[in-house]
Amino acid sequence: MARVVVDVMPKAEILDPQGQAIVGALGRLGFAGVADVRQGKRFELEVDDAVSDTDLERIAEDLLTNTVIENFTVSRAAE
Amino acid sequence: MARVVVDVMPKAEILDPQGQAIVGALGRLGFAGVADVRQGKRFELEVDDAVSDTDLERIAEDLLTNTVIENFTVSRAAE
Repeated sequence: MARVVVDVMPKAEILDPQGQAIVGALGRLGFAGVADVRQGKRFELEVDDAVSDTDLERIAEDLLTNTVIENFTVSRAAE
Repeated sequence: MARVVVDVMPKAEILDPQGQAIVGALGRLGFAGVADVRQGKRFELEVDDAVSDTDLERIAEDLLTNTVIENFTVSRAAE
């Protein structure tokens, strides 16, 4: 078994209201110095070693990501 | 400015219905070999270099994580 991490983040040109809400809350709570926050998703998959990188890309692209508004990265975690 | 990544994942003992739904969907779509999926959140923060690690821990713990059900990790991304 291998641990695979898929990170899905909104594209740079997409507004991220959740992230902006966090920036606003940080200011109100007295945390200065945070210029921008973007919120995305992190998936941790436990996969058989037989699952190929191609399959992982397809899983990430077809099922986990809305490719119109999000980018994804797939990485196999070091054991 | 520095890029900081905060990963927030459900604790191991917490049920993750979103992740289980993905496991089920993968099976129906014909992707074999994925034993488990857990879904969490990824935050990318742009912070001034003056913001301390202590502040970042407090931001992650107090604002970004529900520590009853979630764990978090803070990492400064390599430039």
